[in-house]
Amino acid sequence: MSSSVPNSENRKIVTGPAGYILEDVPHFTDDFPNAPTYPNPLQDNAAYSVVKQYFVDEDDTVPQKIVVHPDSPRGTHFRRAGPRQRVYFESDDVLACIVTCGGLCPGLNTVIREIVCGLSYMYGVKRILGIDGGYRGFYARNTIHLDIKTVNDIHRSGGTILGTSRGGHNTTKIVDSIQDRGINQVYIIGGDGSQKGAAAIFEEIRRRGLKVAVAGIPKTIDNDIPIIDRSFGFDTAVEEAQRAINAAHVEATSFENGIGLVKLMGRYSGFIAMYATLASRDVDCCLIPESPFFLEGPGGLFEFIDKRLKESGHMVIVIAEGAGQDLLSESIEESKTLKDASGNKLLQDVGLWISQRIKDHFAKKMTLNLKYIDPTYMIRAVPSNASDNVCCTLLAQSAVHGVMAGYNGFTVGLVNGRHTYIPFYRITEKQNKVVITDRMWARLLSSTNQPSFMRQDRSESNQKAGEAGTMEW
Amino acid sequence: MSSSVPNSENRKIVTGPAGYILEDVPHFTDDFPNAPTYPNPLQDNAAYSVVKQYFVDEDDTVPQKIVVHPDSPRGTHFRRAGPRQRVYFESDDVLACIVTCGGLCPGLNTVIREIVCGLSYMYGVKRILGIDGGYRGFYARNTIHLDIKTVNDIHRSGGTILGTSRGGHNTTKIVDSIQDRGINQVYIIGGDGSQKGAAAIFEEIRRRGLKVAVAGIPKTIDNDIPIIDRSFGFDTAVEEAQRAINAAHVEATSFENGIGLVKLMGRYSGFIAMYATLASRDVDCCLIPESPFFLEGPGGLFEFIDKRLKESGHMVIVIAEGAGQDLLSESIEESKTLKDASGNKLLQDVGLWISQRIKDHFAKKMTLNLKYIDPTYMIRAVPSNASDNVCCTLLAQSAVHGVMAGYNGFTVGLVNGRHTYIPFYRITEKQNKVVITDRMWARLLSSTNQPSFMRQDRSESNQKAGEAGTMEW
Amino acid sequence: MSSSVPNSENRKIVTGPAGYILEDVPHFTDDFPNAPTYPNPLQDNAAYSVVKQYFVDEDDTVPQKIVVHPDSPRGTHFRRAGPRQRVYFESDDVLACIVTCGGLCPGLNTVIREIVCGLSYMYGVKRILGIDGGYRGFYARNTIHLDIKTVNDIHRSGGTILGTSRGGHNTTKIVDSIQDRGINQVYIIGGDGSQKGAAAIFEEIRRRGLKVAVAGIPKTIDNDIPIIDRSFGFDTAVEEAQRAINAAHVEATSFENGIGLVKLMGRYSGFIAMYATLASRDVDCCLIPESPFFLEGPGGLFEFIDKRLKESGHMVIVIAEGAGQDLLSESIEESKTLKDASGNKLLQDVGLWISQRIKDHFAKKMTLNLKYIDPTYMIRAVPSNASDNVCCTLLAQSAVHGVMAGYNGFTVGLVNGRHTYIPFYRITEKQNKVVITDRMWARLLSSTNQPSFMRQDRSESNQKAGEAGTMEW
Amino acid sequence: MSSSVPNSENRKIVTGPAGYILEDVPHFTDDFPNAPTYPNPLQDNAAYSVVKQYFVDEDDTVPQKIVVHPDSPRGTHFRRAGPRQRVYFESDDVLACIVTCGGLCPGLNTVIREIVCGLSYMYGVKRILGIDGGYRGFYARNTIHLDIKTVNDIHRSGGTILGTSRGGHNTTKIVDSIQDRGINQVYIIGGDGSQKGAAAIFEEIRRRGLKVAVAGIPKTIDNDIPIIDRSFGFDTAVEEAQRAINAAHVEATSFENGIGLVKLMGRYSGFIAMYATLASRDVDCCLIPESPFFLEGPGGLFEFIDKRLKESGHMVIVIAEGAGQDLLSESIEESKTLKDASGNKLLQDVGLWISQRIKDHFAKKMTLNLKYIDPTYMIRAVPSNASDNVCCTLLAQSAVHGVMAGYNGFTVGLVNGRHTYIPFYRITEKQNKVVITDRMWARLLSSTNQPSFMRQDRSESNQKAGEAGTMEW
Repeated sequence: MSSSVPNSENRKIVTGPAGYILEDVPHFTDDFPNAPTYPNPLQDNAAYSVVKQYFVDEDDTVPQKIVVHPDSPRGTHFRRAGPRQRVYFESDDVLACIVTCGGLCPGLNTVIREIVCGLSYMYGVKRILGIDGGYRGFYARNTIHLDIKTVNDIHRSGGTILGTSRGGHNTTKIVDSIQDRGINQVYIIGGDGSQKGAAAIFEEIRRRGLKVAVAGIPKTIDNDIPIIDRSFGFDTAVEEAQRAINAAHVEATSFENGIGLVKLMGRYSGFIAMYATLASRDVDCCLIPESPFFLEGPGGLFEFIDKRLKESGHMVIVIAEGAGQDLLSESIEESKTLKDASGNKLLQDVGLWISQRIKDHFAKKMTLNLKYIDPTYMIRAVPSNASDNVCCTLLAQSAVHGVMAGYNGFTVGLVNGRHTYIPFYRITEKQNKVVITDRMWARLLSSTNQPSFMRQDRSESNQKAGEAGTMEW
Repeated sequence: MSSSVPNSENRKIVTGPAGYILEDVPHFTDDFPNAPTYPNPLQDNAAYSVVKQYFVDEDDTVPQKIVVHPDSPRGTHFRRAGPRQRVYFESDDVLACIVTCGGLCPGLNTVIREIVCGLSYMYGVKRILGIDGGYRGFYARNTIHLDIKTVNDIHRSGGTILGTSRGGHNTTKIVDSIQDRGINQVYIIGGDGSQKGAAAIFEEIRRRGLKVAVAGIPKTIDNDIPIIDRSFGFDTAVEEAQRAINAAHVEATSFENGIGLVKLMGRYSGFIAMYATLASRDVDCCLIPESPFFLEGPGGLFEFIDKRLKESGHMVIVIAEGAGQDLLSESIEESKTLKDASGNKLLQDVGLWISQRIKDHFAKKMTLNLKYIDPTYMIRAVPSNASDNVCCTLLAQSAVHGVMAGYNGFTVGLVNGRHTYIPFYRITEKQNKVVITDRMWARLLSSTNQPSFMRQDRSESNQKAGEAGTMEW
Repeated sequence: MSSSVPNSENRKIVTGPAGYILEDVPHFTDDFPNAPTYPNPLQDNAAYSVVKQYFVDEDDTVPQKIVVHPDSPRGTHFRRAGPRQRVYFESDDVLACIVTCGGLCPGLNTVIREIVCGLSYMYGVKRILGIDGGYRGFYARNTIHLDIKTVNDIHRSGGTILGTSRGGHNTTKIVDSIQDRGINQVYIIGGDGSQKGAAAIFEEIRRRGLKVAVAGIPKTIDNDIPIIDRSFGFDTAVEEAQRAINAAHVEATSFENGIGLVKLMGRYSGFIAMYATLASRDVDCCLIPESPFFLEGPGGLFEFIDKRLKESGHMVIVIAEGAGQDLLSESIEESKTLKDASGNKLLQDVGLWISQRIKDHFAKKMTLNLKYIDPTYMIRAVPSNASDNVCCTLLAQSAVHGVMAGYNGFTVGLVNGRHTYIPFYRITEKQNKVVITDRMWARLLSSTNQPSFMRQDRSESNQKAGEAGTMEW
Repeated sequence: MSSSVPNSENRKIVTGPAGYILEDVPHFTDDFPNAPTYPNPLQDNAAYSVVKQYFVDEDDTVPQKIVVHPDSPRGTHFRRAGPRQRVYFESDDVLACIVTCGGLCPGLNTVIREIVCGLSYMYGVKRILGIDGGYRGFYARNTIHLDIKTVNDIHRSGGTILGTSRGGHNTTKIVDSIQDRGINQVYIIGGDGSQKGAAAIFEEIRRRGLKVAVAGIPKTIDNDIPIIDRSFGFDTAVEEAQRAINAAHVEATSFENGIGLVKLMGRYSGFIAMYATLASRDVDCCLIPESPFFLEGPGGLFEFIDKRLKESGHMVIVIAEGAGQDLLSESIEESKTLKDASGNKLLQDVGLWISQRIKDHFAKKMTLNLKYIDPTYMIRAVPSNASDNVCCTLLAQSAVHGVMAGYNGFTVGLVNGRHTYIPFYRITEKQNKVVITDRMWARLLSSTNQPSFMRQDRSESNQKAGEAGTMEW
């Protein structure tokens, strides 16, 4: 490759001709230039004998931006995931551990299963530990032995067999535990908070000069992790959300002035709400954190409800849990200071709040029949569907290949449909959000025909928010 | 753009710096350089007022190959789909028609619905006809009037409300009918045979000098159309196939020497079989057209069955309908000459055939309990799932935007996750096939641990087949 | 029959040998002894030519109590439902109407469909009206024309195509409307409140001397209507409730001290909670209105939660919406006087209340992870399953046969698996409740191993409540 | 009780006043008059303290026929199932075994689970064996240890964890094995063939003077066991069959002259076909073994197909696997002598046969699009639904209670909604069949509007067949 300049933050940036940039991930050889290597055991595997292109070329990379002009600079790329010819671990020396952190998400068990199967079948690893109950399990609990038999059927169940928890991240205690137990591969399945934790663990491991690999598998049912196409479980969540929207539609159409109101996941981003709305075709209004709205007066939500009820007699509203937080916090002063264990702002239930506001507003005008449905836990807890099962399998295999090949401090992720290794900082420095000035939101608007809920004075700031977006579908 | 050289086959190839190539689609202005244009009605649509980036930049293109090296040439690109600032039809002048051809596929009704809704809501088109029963409906049947009310609930049902049929393509009669009825937009939803038909219709229209737009929406439950990421309905099909595989697994594990054998769709390509196998984790052997196998002797299927039954007492086999055709035709001489109406080779039921062969082989050795499951029609006929519903919606909207913008003789398709316009010839000139020398098949092998079923003398020719592949996941 | 003595309340009681009692329903001939009759059109229907036993024998009755001793008196019987040889309406003279009242229940559309199909196909009736939006639709709205085409696909959707509402019962206005429109058959689908309304309409019709038939089809998702085996939609509701319980189980087992709490329907009776618990096998505690419980102190709920969490680390609780009302009302004085439109006591949400109480109680002791799931509207709104579809079909056909045969002022219902006609007063005079001193509740206790939550001083009164029960499974 | 006369076949018939007859089951005290008894452990179970009516009264019986006239004789009764005050086994002495025989049926695992849980939780039994792979497992295989942990999650999977097989019944070897192992409770889950086997085992045990209890839980997905209301798994099968019928409907309506043909289970009885048809409302023709039909000429199937296609353009046919066997055997002489391992006549696939006959007949007249769907294994292998889960639970508990109470040589079954103990001979002496001269078949006819397919010369013999029927719904 052309040239590599580690920048002030230890970032590995490689540049090439025509504006080519590679944001590379750390590697064992950065700290241990003479680390011994071994032939990849897959080379002796009979099943792979016909697979000529199985090992990834060292130079393979994937561009982040692929809507291009004839003369566009080539821009940022990420390293392609996959098995390499040589590995940095001997099978018998590996002691791997897996931890799941944060809320539930369809597919957790499939990822666990496939890390275990990948390590076992492909690399002959025999010692794999499950950390019990999230980060604090490293120092507060016993570990669980994992092998092919233990995990054989777990993908049929939702949740995580390892248990999970929010918070509990104590870098020193965790790295002490890794060191004490002799663990040399750490697989961390969790959301952006947990990936920040993974980055901190990785830095501490480096600081202590340990030869331990840390890999993240990003987990967020909200799809709010940047760079990657979509996170595992998202597809299942959108599918399962259809049940709630269908029920809301049936309730709304069976009663005079019927309103079905469905709250979906999405604290800071409205992807589930947006895709569930696009998939359903029955939703009249979709409210997400990225698109501000107001209730009263011309152009407000109440006016739109009134109009839609007069037109068709019923209405379905989908609201992301983080939508309208400015309105909520105006009502509820005390909510400002509350925090939950993972450090997320503790959000009041916007669904209950807005249901009450709608009922109050129309109480004198007409008899509303508003039904509020919160399917959150029923969505989170289902097993992953076929599409997410494949997704989880490939993510797990990519993570295992990367770790065995000596890459470190990375997260695996789909970028434009290809599996890549992404440095931790790129997925934790900001959140993925729906860009309301971009085309996917326009497609939603053309589906719901809802107004923009924009006040004159607000349109300017929103425009700015939009500019930050990078969605280019 | 840099330079455009229409080649011998009327192909529009545009080249640019660093090896950039655009395989462009025809446009009204190719034949009617002075065709009048009108502002896109979406510009006056209040809902889109915040959407700054809604209209697609004329120069936006999407690369076909995105696993790149720092110094790779930029390669082939396709034109990005989406709405343009100016359109080539006045809303009141449009008379659009929609036809569905070939076998059923989940999502047909959603595509029909969203073409109608897209034309109506976004472009104010009022006259839309449904062609009844496939291509022959153009000249042999009455048309069906389509509007927003007619199509409102159709996406909840499988199948196609327009009816469909194989064959019946008579270019002259069809173009006569288009001309007689005054149709000026033709949307053709069908597989590779039907897209070839669409190309023929487009050529005849051009020959007659008609100002009629022809757009294809590729439909193939087998995912055997090249260039595009996946076809609509494929995700639903893989999901639904899990039921059959689960049943096969239960039957196999409940009986001594139980074998569950599932035949899945895939005449010439094994994508459904491969993805359904990857999603399931219960399959011991996956047989597809691209990967030859043999039955008897060392390294053959019977030996593998024998081995797996001895190891675990049961076995699940997934076979694509087009697998093992060479073996079948050896047995059945007469099948060589048969053809079905669409011109596909009439394949004998490989599932029944191989079930019998397995039973016969083991009859003297042991009591087998083989259960054969053919879920084909139960898969084809389900409504599309949430993911495919979104997919169908965006394909339909892309087709409508393209036609309104004056593009012609194109098919819409997802390329690396972006919607593009692709010239007909690129998707009909060959079929998409599983590349058995590439990584996805290797992932399957690592899941099933099945042998390669390669005979010494065959390995060379297979290698060649593999080299033709372009899959780069 | 032996002897018929109309009692003080106009009840038709017939007695026979060995303690045989028939609680008969009114008939046209009670008021119009010389009402003309016609041969049943089914007699000329070719399809029925082989069906020798099709017409019900006039003397066929079904016993209410069937667990008997050798010398038990024969007890109460009800008239068997079904077609009679002669009918009291000419097809062309019939003007039937259908109304749906109260909350949603799976199967409403199937009942509507099958009344229309039964009247049309079996009796050649052509004029059928749908009343829009419950009882008040009789006088406040236009009617909807119903025929075989209108209703063809409605059974695939949840809810009711006629719309429904609570309350709105005004006997005089309703009977005025019936009289004005010339309606002579009234089919009322609704719960116990609506069946009381049906009884009032029937009395007023009799008082006015009108020759109009009134039949009820009992609808209660809670299964709280006495005499009948189960109401339509109940089976579907229990099935659908499994999703919520499964989700609660997954959430509970994935977190430390995880509690999954599911609220199910059942204002005054706990049948759905009880059957959903029996069907699931994952529930640790089931709380229903019929079985009082208390929270604090020895033998209370908190103690049991503490014990179960210590034993197994997680817990699933199912609570019927009407459980623990005494405890709730102690907390919330103001709730006593509130009523909703149908006259039901307006119950506070016991699920939210008990979740908060549990969290508060354990706040100082341990970190609980309690997830509260309220699937009510997602259960109510699904289409009926296969079993309920058959059930709805037969109820609708029985109602139609009864009305055509001149029976009046009755409700149709399954009694010990046989379709019968039951006088209104028998199903409205009290509610069906879970008998906690009987065997089905004992089976539940043996499944959950929960304590009896009985305080010394309360056990006596509960015993009395139990004695009122008639469940004899 | 009045008087008990063991008849020539060792039948225990008890008679009473007003024509009361009890067909009682054998009891330990018949052979061991002084067998010691013990108090039922449930008496000390705190959970049951409130349940006053828990123990079944010795005189409780349930009538077989409940559609009665005022002066009907009381007829046949069966003994009510449930726990008794005293039991004939000490918990520590019990060594129970469970075997599953014959084909798969939804709910097998739930029955196994609940026998284990019932014995363990209610009666403190600790030693329970699973017999591996059906009857031959008694003498040809090792047994499987069963306890509460082993069976905890098995009800979520279809099939049987014990394995099953057809045939293999060798009374001597089986009773030898029972004797050798010291088994004293035998639970046999199987169809009518297996119940005959259970009866033989019971007779042999009696002959040898062993104190071993034998109880049957009838298993037949076809619902072809007489006396009982329905067998477990039947409800799930009818539900699951809807998928196939829906697919057939979609295929039929999407093609010109589309025919969807679904084969459902039912070798000798058409219950699944009949109920699936009634539940669906999309079926045009239902063919079952009990109702003969013919293909050609006036009044035949081809004529009806022709008529229906002309009327509505498409058609759905449901055929039970045993329908039209007379026609099949006319075509295929050799099939007469074949038998499968369980002794059932080996039936050719009527679905493939009739598909070909229909295609051949119409080949010259019109283009048919016939799609044949055989969902058999996909139906058999699903886990039981909520309703069947409750059903299985109560059957298992009833069997356990009966065995502990000293009853022997009986099968448990629902009779008119009540659990009863039925002597083996009553459920094996003939098969339950759809009575085509009765009302349920008439209801189906009114749903499909299909002709009777009766030839003049055949109507007489059918009438006779009809008279044998006892269905009285």
